Amino acid sequence: RINGDRLWDSLMDMAKIGPGLRGGNNRQTLTDEDAEGRRLFQSWCEKAGLTMGVDTMGNMFFRREGTDPDALPVYVGSHLDTQPTGGKYDGVLGVLGGLELIRTLNDLNIKTKHPIVVVNWTNEEGTRFAPAMLASGVFAGIHTQDWAYGREDAKGKTFGDELERIGWKGDEEVGTRKMHALFELHIEQGPILEIEGKDIGVVTHGQGLWWLQVTLTGKDSHTGSTPMPMRRNAGLGMARITELVHSIAMAHQPSAVGAIGHCDVYPNSRNVIPGKVVFTVDFRSPNLDTLNAMKDELEEKAPLIAKELGLGIEIEEAGHFDPVTFDAGCVTAVRNAAERLGYSHRNIISGAGHDACWVNRVAPTAMVMCPCVDGLSHNEDEDISKEWAAAGADVLLHAVLETAEI
Amino acid sequence: RINGDRLWDSLMDMAKIGPGLRGGNNRQTLTDEDAEGRRLFQSWCEKAGLTMGVDTMGNMFFRREGTDPDALPVYVGSHLDTQPTGGKYDGVLGVLGGLELIRTLNDLNIKTKHPIVVVNWTNEEGTRFAPAMLASGVFAGIHTQDWAYGREDAKGKTFGDELERIGWKGDEEVGTRKMHALFELHIEQGPILEIEGKDIGVVTHGQGLWWLQVTLTGKDSHTGSTPMPMRRNAGLGMARITELVHSIAMAHQPSAVGAIGHCDVYPNSRNVIPGKVVFTVDFRSPNLDTLNAMKDELEEKAPLIAKELGLGIEIEEAGHFDPVTFDAGCVTAVRNAAERLGYSHRNIISGAGHDACWVNRVAPTAMVMCPCVDGLSHNEDEDISKEWAAAGADVLLHAVLETAEI
Ligand SMILES: NC(=O)NCCC(=O)O
Ligand SMILES: NC(=O)NCCC(=O)O
Repeated sequence: RINGDRLWDSLMDMAKIGPGLRGGNNRQTLTDEDAEGRRLFQSWCEKAGLTMGVDTMGNMFFRREGTDPDALPVYVGSHLDTQPTGGKYDGVLGVLGGLELIRTLNDLNIKTKHPIVVVNWTNEEGTRFAPAMLASGVFAGIHTQDWAYGREDAKGKTFGDELERIGWKGDEEVGTRKMHALFELHIEQGPILEIEGKDIGVVTHGQGLWWLQVTLTGKDSHTGSTPMPMRRNAGLGMARITELVHSIAMAHQPSAVGAIGHCDVYPNSRNVIPGKVVFTVDFRSPNLDTLNAMKDELEEKAPLIAKELGLGIEIEEAGHFDPVTFDAGCVTAVRNAAERLGYSHRNIISGAGHDACWVNRVAPTAMVMCPCVDGLSHNEDEDISKEWAAAGADVLLHAVLETAEI
Repeated sequence: RINGDRLWDSLMDMAKIGPGLRGGNNRQTLTDEDAEGRRLFQSWCEKAGLTMGVDTMGNMFFRREGTDPDALPVYVGSHLDTQPTGGKYDGVLGVLGGLELIRTLNDLNIKTKHPIVVVNWTNEEGTRFAPAMLASGVFAGIHTQDWAYGREDAKGKTFGDELERIGWKGDEEVGTRKMHALFELHIEQGPILEIEGKDIGVVTHGQGLWWLQVTLTGKDSHTGSTPMPMRRNAGLGMARITELVHSIAMAHQPSAVGAIGHCDVYPNSRNVIPGKVVFTVDFRSPNLDTLNAMKDELEEKAPLIAKELGLGIEIEEAGHFDPVTFDAGCVTAVRNAAERLGYSHRNIISGAGHDACWVNRVAPTAMVMCPCVDGLSHNEDEDISKEWAAAGADVLLHAVLETAEI
């Protein structure tokens, strides 16, 4: 069993970097805080005897040697970056749970046949640079590195420049590593495990996603002196498309969700009718047909809304992944581990996207989930108990041990 | 007649300060650009032999002496501040039209019985610090100066601190000046004069306004893993209230308008359901009962929308003025001037709020309007012709001369 207190202490120490305003974290990707978090993680890993590799996307890999020089490594990890108003556990638990697993093996002097590598993937959250899971996506060959380098944040800074600026662009060519398997521990970010009182979610599938960035162009003009029939109000168009997104999702739930989280209004002045709005639709479903049907319906109906209001419309694909089926062998290893340790568990579909979803394209992959309070995530109040974290890391340890072979 | 070329040159020179991105202006109140514009205006006025007074709200007054030491001055002016993506004429024409009138009197060596004072009112636009027409409102006793000083911009800076910072807080106690009359020249900011081919709008009334700042509080949570029934989506609430505002305005148009120009979404991340939105409703009508009925309907129905979505709601009055009836004598002076000069004209109701609307509470007041292309204002493409500007300033000159007496 892993050391739950030590894991918790590391979680709390990492949370001191990039503190939020309400007890959570703001350690967005490729900020100075991200760099500081990486340095702390590096110091811990090196103290645990691991050797570092960093690839050209800033992904960090820390290796513990195995006994068989020809065996491919088993990977564990997640991400250290957070939402702007994020929690202390989303991503971080999976990285530090991986480190805790290594520390435990060191304590017990356990050697594995396969090497074990703990990984921190760059820009999982996708808030600053869309899409989410950007660096694991490049690793898995979904995006080209050049495309990723050119992604821009809201201020027009590029991913490539910012990676260079914070000093974490490595030399290793991205995507060249071969994996025996990969396991990712993560908080559920939804309510199911807590409601059902289960310790562990055995993640069999992941939902697919479409991010559609919509730009509506009207005409900014005076709110007082422009007659109603002469208005081309882009804000009104956004309102109607927000309602459309909601009704599309409601028609498909519970096996689909949809919302708009990001929107920018121009010029955003009380007495100016919005001349332009830019916003991103987020659609998800574990069912590929449903996912694509939602996108199709939006692409059919949103232009009609725009037309009726005299607005120009542009719809851009800003992020996408298909629903995922995780590797049967790895999923079984997770279930076996929970059984062996006596933790209650159930199969679960991940509602969120994860780096493991992309890596699953190039290596056998599975995920372990633990509950979180009220299913709340992407919120500074995100919370878990020390026991939940420890149970998740325990299951991670045993799934890895079964796969890496003693 | 005034010198239309000289007026135009001054307009173009002022427009060089705080240029916009698309040919208009961004010279928002109490910015460095505002200070620079004020200094340029001061230099022109002093060259024209006027003496400056600045009050504690930063209102600038430039005086040309009259022949009767006991006569109260006739005031002319408007504002030099602009929208963030504003035009070159909204406000500026009224200030520089006043200056051109003085230059013309100087050229012709005309003395008036009443002194003439050209005024630049601080923070007319209300974008950076709500409400609009803030300093003329304090001048007219509508707001207290302390309250005005405490108004905050989006970054939390206060009006009082910023006025001090740019060096334009004067010594003169605000609101102590007595006026014989005030005239304000302004572009129409609506389409009526241009459509009807009239040179001059004789402004008889001004619309009233309500700005209602709405804060909806939901719960920020993950767009992927939060089930639809558990969501408390503040963005969806804003969408429904946007539609409500539109339908209320449509029910009362053409004698009412309504829209939402300002909105901020938190935390504004693609994969976070908005936990909070803050936005401002803008309702206007020339009819007091209609204006208040629109507000009442919003205050009745918006909380029902919030309740249905599980959202908290707060509605704050962020700006207000009642419909205005301008002074009959001053309005007649404007109409007489247009007649005398042979300009086509019609009576018109101002769709926008103006400093003259507040001053009308404490002194006989009227306004002169000239057309603007496509009725477009609060847009960098705002446009007028040199001839329209000259006609407006001519009428201003003659209305002032009739009132200030030669
Ligand atoms: N786990 C997580 O929150 N990932 C961010 C990508 C997503 O929005 O699903
Ligand atoms: N004239 C003008 O645009 N004033 C700003 C205040 C308003 O919104 O009416």
